[in-house]
Amino acid sequence: MKFSPLVQELIDSLKCLPGVGAKSAQRMAFHLLERNRRGGSKLAHSLSKAMVDVGHCQQCRNFTEHELCEICQSPKRQLATTLCVVESPGDVLAIEQTGEFTGKYFVLMGHLSPIDGIGPDDLGLDILAKHFASGQFAEVILATNPTVEGEATAHYIADLAQEYQINMSRIAHGVPVGGELEYVDGNTLSHAFSGRKSYQM
Amino acid sequence: MKFSPLVQELIDSLKCLPGVGAKSAQRMAFHLLERNRRGGSKLAHSLSKAMVDVGHCQQCRNFTEHELCEICQSPKRQLATTLCVVESPGDVLAIEQTGEFTGKYFVLMGHLSPIDGIGPDDLGLDILAKHFASGQFAEVILATNPTVEGEATAHYIADLAQEYQINMSRIAHGVPVGGELEYVDGNTLSHAFSGRKSYQM
Ligand SMILES: [Zn+2]
Ligand SMILES: [Zn+2]
Repeated sequence: MKFSPLVQELIDSLKCLPGVGAKSAQRMAFHLLERNRRGGSKLAHSLSKAMVDVGHCQQCRNFTEHELCEICQSPKRQLATTLCVVESPGDVLAIEQTGEFTGKYFVLMGHLSPIDGIGPDDLGLDILAKHFASGQFAEVILATNPTVEGEATAHYIADLAQEYQINMSRIAHGVPVGGELEYVDGNTLSHAFSGRKSYQM
Repeated sequence: MKFSPLVQELIDSLKCLPGVGAKSAQRMAFHLLERNRRGGSKLAHSLSKAMVDVGHCQQCRNFTEHELCEICQSPKRQLATTLCVVESPGDVLAIEQTGEFTGKYFVLMGHLSPIDGIGPDDLGLDILAKHFASGQFAEVILATNPTVEGEATAHYIADLAQEYQINMSRIAHGVPVGGELEYVDGNTLSHAFSGRKSYQM
């Protein structure tokens, strides 16, 4: 015996979500069916629209349902000479929320990972090379994650940028603001020390 | 700045799933958009069908897209004289998988919970009373979870069954106190069934 066909199909489909196994999928299906059909129908609608209509921005590769994303369309950013390379759309959002950066982005949608078969082409590095070649950008900020894969990806892109004689910078690693020194891992602390700056009174 | 409208809408919609907060919803949306559009479209399709077409079995309240569920339709069970009352469809599946029980079920779809405003009517106890009144059932097995709410619900149903002079039993042996029925292994559940005792008011 299984659940009724439609319920079983719903449970099976929910398992395509990352981190959702058989038991969670079952709990989700029952919750929607019993307590939130409106939410379930809304999700169905959003999903089917997004899966069909959301593509990648032709300039920065971020998700968008238009040819260009909001940032690439923005007149204020048209003449930006700084390009910030990040791994994911969430990174763009986080950086935008600081209000510190007014240049353009390039979203890799991942990082180099030979084990998973993810190479330069999967990250759109051919498109990135065209941006470098265009002459628009004087500086590229390598803002990939400070992980092994993120560092390797930053290194690969730095090699590429160098061919076009573009200035490169890497976001600073160190003790997070508000963090406590004794709880920061040794590697981060090393970075914090080697990247120390002259103290301004 | 937010994500593009369709992406933001997808993230917001995913938050209707139990246990899914803003960060998980974002991760799920990116995963589907970047790595599994087919899975996402399939989920959209399953969801929209299930939300519209899945209802409750008119006899046992389990989820089904027909008037009666597979078990209630089964000729083998038509003359069953034992009724097993459980909290959720997952419990029915777990009990069916032991192969020990050949009677009928009644699925409460929850338990009494005054704090959440869930009373007897929300659990279909009016329909259950009609089953008791029909004279078909000689015994009711109270198979709600061995939690505080499950015990209270069992007690309430026992009161009801007593009015109709139906024998009551409560599954007992092997189910860990404080545990949830659907997560118990089949062997333990078999023992719980064969070791059931007459319910003491
Ligand atoms: Zn863009
Ligand atoms: Zn039924």
